[in-house]
Amino acid sequence: MARNTKVAADPNAPPVTRTLARFVATHPSTGWSDAVDREAHRTFLNWVGCAVGAARHESVEAALGALAMLRPSAQAAVLGREERLDMAGAALVNGISSHTFDFDDTHLKTIIHPAGPVASALLALAEGTGASGRQVIDALVLGIDVSCRVGNAMYPDHYDRGWHITGSTGTLGAAAGCARLLGLDEEKTAMALGIAASQPVGMREQFGTMTKPFHPGAAARAGLTAAILAKHGFTASPKALEAPRGMMQTVSTKNDWNEITDELGSRFEISFNTYKPFACGIVIHPSIDACVQLRERGVAAADVERIELKVHSLVLELTGKKEPKDGLEGKFSVYHGCAAGLVVGRAGEPEYDDDFVNREDVVALRRRVVATVDDSIDEASADVTAVLKDGRRERVFVEHAIGSLERPLPDAALEDKFRTMADPVIGAARVGALLAACRDLGNAPSVGAVVKEARP
Amino acid sequence: MARNTKVAADPNAPPVTRTLARFVATHPSTGWSDAVDREAHRTFLNWVGCAVGAARHESVEAALGALAMLRPSAQAAVLGREERLDMAGAALVNGISSHTFDFDDTHLKTIIHPAGPVASALLALAEGTGASGRQVIDALVLGIDVSCRVGNAMYPDHYDRGWHITGSTGTLGAAAGCARLLGLDEEKTAMALGIAASQPVGMREQFGTMTKPFHPGAAARAGLTAAILAKHGFTASPKALEAPRGMMQTVSTKNDWNEITDELGSRFEISFNTYKPFACGIVIHPSIDACVQLRERGVAAADVERIELKVHSLVLELTGKKEPKDGLEGKFSVYHGCAAGLVVGRAGEPEYDDDFVNREDVVALRRRVVATVDDSIDEASADVTAVLKDGRRERVFVEHAIGSLERPLPDAALEDKFRTMADPVIGAARVGALLAACRDLGNAPSVGAVVKEARP
Repeated sequence: MARNTKVAADPNAPPVTRTLARFVATHPSTGWSDAVDREAHRTFLNWVGCAVGAARHESVEAALGALAMLRPSAQAAVLGREERLDMAGAALVNGISSHTFDFDDTHLKTIIHPAGPVASALLALAEGTGASGRQVIDALVLGIDVSCRVGNAMYPDHYDRGWHITGSTGTLGAAAGCARLLGLDEEKTAMALGIAASQPVGMREQFGTMTKPFHPGAAARAGLTAAILAKHGFTASPKALEAPRGMMQTVSTKNDWNEITDELGSRFEISFNTYKPFACGIVIHPSIDACVQLRERGVAAADVERIELKVHSLVLELTGKKEPKDGLEGKFSVYHGCAAGLVVGRAGEPEYDDDFVNREDVVALRRRVVATVDDSIDEASADVTAVLKDGRRERVFVEHAIGSLERPLPDAALEDKFRTMADPVIGAARVGALLAACRDLGNAPSVGAVVKEARP
Repeated sequence: MARNTKVAADPNAPPVTRTLARFVATHPSTGWSDAVDREAHRTFLNWVGCAVGAARHESVEAALGALAMLRPSAQAAVLGREERLDMAGAALVNGISSHTFDFDDTHLKTIIHPAGPVASALLALAEGTGASGRQVIDALVLGIDVSCRVGNAMYPDHYDRGWHITGSTGTLGAAAGCARLLGLDEEKTAMALGIAASQPVGMREQFGTMTKPFHPGAAARAGLTAAILAKHGFTASPKALEAPRGMMQTVSTKNDWNEITDELGSRFEISFNTYKPFACGIVIHPSIDACVQLRERGVAAADVERIELKVHSLVLELTGKKEPKDGLEGKFSVYHGCAAGLVVGRAGEPEYDDDFVNREDVVALRRRVVATVDDSIDEASADVTAVLKDGRRERVFVEHAIGSLERPLPDAALEDKFRTMADPVIGAARVGALLAACRDLGNAPSVGAVVKEARP
């Protein structure tokens, strides 16, 4: 009707719904390099650690209380908890917990946190249907490729407009992954993507509330639901993504379709996934990294006269809080981050609790950090010098922080991060077995070992 | 951050999330005229009829097949079916069935179909929690006020952009209604609206597929989930609707905030709800209405030489199919509509099945309909003359069709429509009791009678 023309739209978009459906339904198992497969395991492991770590958070308690009203069947695990829920409920709650600490993975080109929606849906569905570990890893690679490629096409306009891109593209990734896990053909996979396309989740206004981590959870649940509906013959538009009144043109004025089709099946977006080593905003990471390195060189907090920190102006603009009062304020203090790095050699979630932020030696060192703006230094870098009480100077220049694409977090550090989160919830004795189950998922006959070892 | 400013947004929007939450949480029970209460009962009754009528449709079968994979508990009824589902699942399926025939209610100012999302969530939640019929009617009035007022604020830009406004605003209406039914206070009602605001459902590209009726179902489920999360302490932004990166500014460039606040609590949008008497697009309704009136005046199809039809050009543009081959094509044929009106005096769902569209006397009469464009006639009107074989002429001019705001569908016609839909599913013997239960809902101690009588 005439009204259709009032908002501009491109009637000539390529058939990306079909293209992605064919790719997801037909790409061969392990049809990628070992490096991609390894990254998928790292993505899964990091996601499990984040979900287990936040399993006792009040957001998870609230969600479990709500879902108990539905008297769900006990089909699938809630990571780090005794409770079991139906597959859709488990997808929702694991999605919430995995994003609660803002400590999950990041696809830097789009700032999508890709694992939450996709892995949460897959683990639940795999447990409920008895899928193998290999099927889960395959579906994770393909599902994340779908969400990140759609994200690449719409970013940044879609994000600028107000969408929390993790949730809005995550529904598609979860639907794609679940369709693959269920063995749907191209036609039904297109229907699953189509049903999912009507359910983008997440507004940026929610940042700072429990509804932020709700976004990947709701995306996981919606994607799983879309796939099981498609399996049972439910229909949607086969052009639901690209049509003038389809999802992508409705939620974004920028749509670079080539981002979806270029090198499809040869370049895998999961290759570009990264994992935060420190439980705070990414601009602080180079400074913390430098302080951890100073500590490794033997610099002791007690010997420090002052820390001279040179950073880009953005760092102080975003995280310049000199005297943080609690854990949350600590996340916006490069001073606290440096102190944590030098005093204990890490800045995980425990270093952002209220007690640690107010610990005497940490406060004392924080006050000795002198920050200077130097815009010749990149935002991704930091120049840190420890001036010791005996006059000696130790300097570390970090060009790219640990955990960036240029300096990927080593497996050992990823596992340390995992232990820090999971130990308090399931006990250090169990964590080793859980890590092993995650590492070996691609060879496992089922997700049973992950589920078993993630119980407290 | 700088990026926030790249897409224009209004930082000075009034606090409509709070305003609506206070209204929903505190407006007194039956705090409106008898006419509003009567319209709420008519809205509920029409919704039940549509849902029961489509209960055996393949879209419902597919949805039930999918949800069976979750092994839901038997908390709440699926109208017109033996199956029972958990509250969230029942909300989803009743929302799907109620919109499957495109025969549900219409808030003409926004073309929102308001009952689907709100009533589907409320019936399920009321059955699961034992709420009274009065609580359901109150929540229906208030929930529909929320979705239609948000719709008024965003329409038409939001719709033009690609959103199926029934689903995108319906999530809010369902959340508001469920919050009211659960007795949430203002603060928690604001959280329920906030959680819902991150889940707008529905793209117009899905029209013509099962995902169109999925939209009100998914909105019902999302709204119900938002309310039970809020009840258990889950948090969201208290400015989730109006903030620059909140829902409304993210999904619409037009936001007339006054539409939300003006006459809040004195003007109720449910007053403007309408019910289709004929199972086809609204532009054909005046022509069918005129033919039904001719029949009531004694014009018999066998005596008709020809029907002279004068209508606005839009009518033939949208529904000018002269020789429809099946039921679906029949919906786009004003010729078939006129024939049905004159031959059987109605044009409900049975008059749009393949057999009826191809019935000999119907086809014969359809071919005698001569349509002429006359743009001096309004789109909402029709000028119809029956020229009889004996030379007599009978003329009916319909200014506003039956079922419009100007000529509301009488209760008797609404109940006829209900019977036509429900009889084949639950049997004529049960329909009387179901109608009575719907009519009396405001006085009923629970929704038990509706649920009992709607079983086949």
